[in-house]
Amino acid sequence: MATRFVRGVARTMTTVAAVKTPRLTRAGRYIGTSLLVSGGVALYASHQGSVAAAQKAPSSLDTSTFMAAPVTELSDLEGKPHDMRTKMELMIMRIQSEFCRALEVEEGEGCKFTVDKWRRHNPSEGGGVTCVLQDGKIFEKAGVNITVMTAPLSKELQASMRARGKKLPEDKKFSFFAAGISSVIHPRNPHVPTIHFNYRYFEMQDEDGNNKHWWFGGGTDLTPYYLDEGDVKLFHGVLKSACDRHHPDYYSRFKKWCDDYFFVKFRGERRGVGGIFFDDLEDADPENTFGFVRDCAEAVIPSYLPLVKKHKNDAVSEAERRWQLLRRGRYVEFNLVYDRGTKFGFATPNARIESILMSLPLHARWEYMHQPAPGTPEYKITEVLKNPKDWV
Amino acid sequence: MATRFVRGVARTMTTVAAVKTPRLTRAGRYIGTSLLVSGGVALYASHQGSVAAAQKAPSSLDTSTFMAAPVTELSDLEGKPHDMRTKMELMIMRIQSEFCRALEVEEGEGCKFTVDKWRRHNPSEGGGVTCVLQDGKIFEKAGVNITVMTAPLSKELQASMRARGKKLPEDKKFSFFAAGISSVIHPRNPHVPTIHFNYRYFEMQDEDGNNKHWWFGGGTDLTPYYLDEGDVKLFHGVLKSACDRHHPDYYSRFKKWCDDYFFVKFRGERRGVGGIFFDDLEDADPENTFGFVRDCAEAVIPSYLPLVKKHKNDAVSEAERRWQLLRRGRYVEFNLVYDRGTKFGFATPNARIESILMSLPLHARWEYMHQPAPGTPEYKITEVLKNPKDWV
Repeated sequence: MATRFVRGVARTMTTVAAVKTPRLTRAGRYIGTSLLVSGGVALYASHQGSVAAAQKAPSSLDTSTFMAAPVTELSDLEGKPHDMRTKMELMIMRIQSEFCRALEVEEGEGCKFTVDKWRRHNPSEGGGVTCVLQDGKIFEKAGVNITVMTAPLSKELQASMRARGKKLPEDKKFSFFAAGISSVIHPRNPHVPTIHFNYRYFEMQDEDGNNKHWWFGGGTDLTPYYLDEGDVKLFHGVLKSACDRHHPDYYSRFKKWCDDYFFVKFRGERRGVGGIFFDDLEDADPENTFGFVRDCAEAVIPSYLPLVKKHKNDAVSEAERRWQLLRRGRYVEFNLVYDRGTKFGFATPNARIESILMSLPLHARWEYMHQPAPGTPEYKITEVLKNPKDWV
Repeated sequence: MATRFVRGVARTMTTVAAVKTPRLTRAGRYIGTSLLVSGGVALYASHQGSVAAAQKAPSSLDTSTFMAAPVTELSDLEGKPHDMRTKMELMIMRIQSEFCRALEVEEGEGCKFTVDKWRRHNPSEGGGVTCVLQDGKIFEKAGVNITVMTAPLSKELQASMRARGKKLPEDKKFSFFAAGISSVIHPRNPHVPTIHFNYRYFEMQDEDGNNKHWWFGGGTDLTPYYLDEGDVKLFHGVLKSACDRHHPDYYSRFKKWCDDYFFVKFRGERRGVGGIFFDDLEDADPENTFGFVRDCAEAVIPSYLPLVKKHKNDAVSEAERRWQLLRRGRYVEFNLVYDRGTKFGFATPNARIESILMSLPLHARWEYMHQPAPGTPEYKITEVLKNPKDWV
């Protein structure tokens, strides 16, 4: 089941296969409802989302600015305002909307995000909200996806969780809860980098409600086609500030983790200039970890939008466009061969594949034996991909 | 080390990285040497390659029609004329040359294949000959690769061989020999299907020369963008004839294996209309298996060239071209996520990645939620990809 919000009309579709080719015209907006929250605590208050703002906010659960209604029933969210599942879902819904709108401002009066609200094949397992802007003036393909789901952990995924050090007794069946936001933005202009970010919260427990595990994971990373050192410094600087507010070691640890993770082994190069990446993050107090993840998610706009504004109207040669498409081919290689989120999606039965592969670019190119000539701007960026640098 | 044969001049390059962007102009030809074969038996005699022709041929090892000199030293080939390694190498070198030349005839006076002769990082491990024609009038990207190599079997590959049922004692180190031809042709016109074929011979043994295994594998499969039933029947018919000459069950077994193998699970569809696929094929007499594999390899031209000739000048709309690029995106998905040969390449230390990924198209496209409308030609082919048919 998928509901598409187009021109203000919510259409409910029985299967994904029934969806026709979308003509990505101006998408309508979800009109949310303000609801009183039990206990009088505002779960979602402002675009800043800070604790202070939340405490001062009127006692209503205002979802009117979201791209669509949350995946979980509002009454369930209201009933469990302090549950981390609730907090995470509302936070990622807010980030999705803020980011999509910031991108639409850059796009101007042209393309808007199409909003697909979908549920899993078994609706009790949850669903998501997939927002895609395709073939825009500024953005060739921009996807921002929310998933909130509870499902049995397949044998394949149990094995991969064990490989990551999670203690899951062999004789127990496990289920998991996951709430996450994932986004990849492929701009049209080769001087505007591609950005990816993903922030997620996981819970796992066995059929008896024992052997509980929870953790956060995520990261933000940048893939420029041409190296503008000022851009990369600004981007890393914003991420470092977010990290430094929580732990003095976070930035250096997660910057290295990012360089190691986004590595295409068979090419001997990283896919971009990195950023931060972390997984299995927990703390004695989950609130602390949540606060860190929220700050990282809120750092996406200030780390990226200045780069879009600066370069979106840069002059572009045909050779620069070709280089961008070749590098997009490398992006596809990473996503299909290595990306943990994509593999998790492939291994999840009945996964909504279109929400996973919205990360792939509209166009990509593979030339046999393409090698940029030494001294060219194309060569300069590949050197950085082979030998990651410290930027801040 | 790679040697590129361009305009008749063989340049030896120290590293792959030193190769500049190739401008794919008319590639020169390797001028082979005719050599007497010890024992007076001709290993390679004619384009037909039949046993009868070989017996009647003059007693010389004529490699002058090959795209480049064989990977193995001619003196070594001469010394072991009855060794299956020798027979396989000469057979695939011949098939490579026959197929490349047949494609060049279709291309006319334009693009020719660039020929790269390369060796493994450790030259004693062998190498290959990679022929690529890129950005031609008829072929957007055509790659035909030969690999002949001997190398230690990595732990990862040992595990995957065990998973396939090969008995490899845990306490022994293994090495393998592989000789294979692999090819993917992406034509420009969406009415000409893409073809892939791969024929390979494997030997494995432990460090003491015990625990020997050998087998053949391979297949030929077709990926049309639009369904022309006559084309598919012709293609399958030629493959069936080759199979029927060797075993009455081969075609039906290997046709089903092909349908099962080229399946993109997360899309619920096959990548094309199939063909034949087999692996781990052995017989009491290796000559029989070799004869079958040779006949399959020789069936490539008669199964495919008629389709190229028939459709290469068909009228093409912009919508048809876009559909072709979307389907090429699916081809990339199969190759990077599932293809056994590609995964074997990724898992082989110091593999020549450009020879593996030459299979990827020059252009590919991914649109979010693209679904062809029922009743359209685009819809018709996707139905066949979901529900494979019997064609002959």
